[in-house]
Amino acid sequence: MFKPGPRNLITDVRGLKVGHATDEAVGTGITALLCEPGWAAAVDVRGGGPGTRETDSLAAENLVGRAHAVVLAGGSVFGLAAADGVAAWLSAHGAGLQLRPGSPPIPIVPCAVLHDLANGGDKNWGLSPPYRDLGLGAAEAAQADFDLGSVGAGRGALAGFRKGGIGSASLSFDGIVVGALVAVNSVGSVLMPDGKTYWAWAFELDREFGGGGPPQGPMDLSDPAPDEARLEAIGRLVPGVNTTIAVVACNADLSTAECKRVSVMAHDGIARAVRPAHTPFDGDTVFALASADIALTNDSLRAAQIGRIGSAASDCLTRAIARAVHYS
Amino acid sequence: MFKPGPRNLITDVRGLKVGHATDEAVGTGITALLCEPGWAAAVDVRGGGPGTRETDSLAAENLVGRAHAVVLAGGSVFGLAAADGVAAWLSAHGAGLQLRPGSPPIPIVPCAVLHDLANGGDKNWGLSPPYRDLGLGAAEAAQADFDLGSVGAGRGALAGFRKGGIGSASLSFDGIVVGALVAVNSVGSVLMPDGKTYWAWAFELDREFGGGGPPQGPMDLSDPAPDEARLEAIGRLVPGVNTTIAVVACNADLSTAECKRVSVMAHDGIARAVRPAHTPFDGDTVFALASADIALTNDSLRAAQIGRIGSAASDCLTRAIARAVHYS
Repeated sequence: MFKPGPRNLITDVRGLKVGHATDEAVGTGITALLCEPGWAAAVDVRGGGPGTRETDSLAAENLVGRAHAVVLAGGSVFGLAAADGVAAWLSAHGAGLQLRPGSPPIPIVPCAVLHDLANGGDKNWGLSPPYRDLGLGAAEAAQADFDLGSVGAGRGALAGFRKGGIGSASLSFDGIVVGALVAVNSVGSVLMPDGKTYWAWAFELDREFGGGGPPQGPMDLSDPAPDEARLEAIGRLVPGVNTTIAVVACNADLSTAECKRVSVMAHDGIARAVRPAHTPFDGDTVFALASADIALTNDSLRAAQIGRIGSAASDCLTRAIARAVHYS
Repeated sequence: MFKPGPRNLITDVRGLKVGHATDEAVGTGITALLCEPGWAAAVDVRGGGPGTRETDSLAAENLVGRAHAVVLAGGSVFGLAAADGVAAWLSAHGAGLQLRPGSPPIPIVPCAVLHDLANGGDKNWGLSPPYRDLGLGAAEAAQADFDLGSVGAGRGALAGFRKGGIGSASLSFDGIVVGALVAVNSVGSVLMPDGKTYWAWAFELDREFGGGGPPQGPMDLSDPAPDEARLEAIGRLVPGVNTTIAVVACNADLSTAECKRVSVMAHDGIARAVRPAHTPFDGDTVFALASADIALTNDSLRAAQIGRIGSAASDCLTRAIARAVHYS
């Protein structure tokens, strides 16, 4: 009854398309999720060093509360330009708020970035960082199937001192489909101190990240930041250098405020898959989208349905984080 | 090097005193933490049905950002009156902001409440709920040693459909002491679906919650809200009826904003010990206090120290939640 969707990707939520654009020479990339009709959307920013765009437009008390795409990008602050490319592409293809006949549609494209500037690629871009063009490419490439691992926004990512990347997972139940997409560039580790057991191990479905199972034998978990010296040595203990950025989505008719609750709960998925998380050095940010394909009840059971969707989003994000590292 | 403090209680942070007041006939109680000189304090409210007082005074951009006590209380909205009792007691004993000579000191006493009104005790209190008097009693009783389990604010609490209560734990390292105190009244479960393995099992130190260890054999974790039907049957799926409310504390010289980061990170301890957490039905709230006994460095390493303290606070809260149920 509860099982991954056919792709085990966020695109099991019907109507979502995902496209990567990767620049191997620069060692970076971006990932665009298109929801062109404009889906209800919210965001919860919980890290100490976030880099974001259009997050204020998603506040429940503000006017719009919808998005036509969400962009995850490498490139730190320069990566925010990826959303320029996606917005231009969407508008040229007729997607966005149509405020006045004849004027271009205005797509709302929230974006969160991660830092991959120190990974050895050629970053001598002077006045022309590649991110706007990567945004155009990712929007053009978007479809239901997409790769996991060291691609798109995850191309230059690190998970602690290990290779990070792009992960995704989904869960289907009772006609509801929930999915998560993540770019893992965390300061914390996705593995327990034995160096091989995923923190997420208990949440794995169908051996989706290798079937490694539970830890063998006891471990010393007393140190709350066990990799600190190693991270300091590679320059990772700098605010803004690390980030887990994610999108969760579902096919129910959530309001913007309900999307916010789902994004809040989804952060628990980061907590369960990465330790430590939400540090001063992380820019941990989760967007939530809802397509409104399925109408939830409007009675007293609605909050329970929101809670179940939020818990599913959290579980999907936990699994997606492990899959990101597994495929990288 | 990393080990629990001598009491394995939040009061290992020097200067903190904790007092319970329990009314067995009513089936409720309150727990007061006194930090009478006024410690730097912040709060992070993440649940969908919180009940709180004086949280706005702890915002980093506001004037005070300090607390003289924190109160956790049963009684839902009526429990907020417990802070009246604690504030009166503190002022009468000379603790609080002294704004003008001769006027009474003004103690800042933030408070969060949990719902225990439907547990069968005698709640026919009419115009005289017992919480103000319980506040006076808890302040009077406060000391370094205190009980865990079904006492104080945890007297009427449930963790999912099991008995909840009061838990605490601490961690000491490099002269830093971090501790957590929690009243567990969550809608989610502290046990994995096998009904016996604590979600927190990997974080246990020195068999502090029974030494049950990891799960034996595989489990189906695909259902994101496995206890929903059972919770609905006992009336727990109502906003405001469930809550994990906690205080974390340390002996370092954190600013109010740094306390906020620690409270944010500490919520990951709820995520790791309870599933689901932060639902629409929970009022999950975490206060963070700092005594300033120890001066952190003010160089580029400070953020790493804050991150380590935040991660320790999260781990202590994970352990405290399991201990709450273990002792109840």
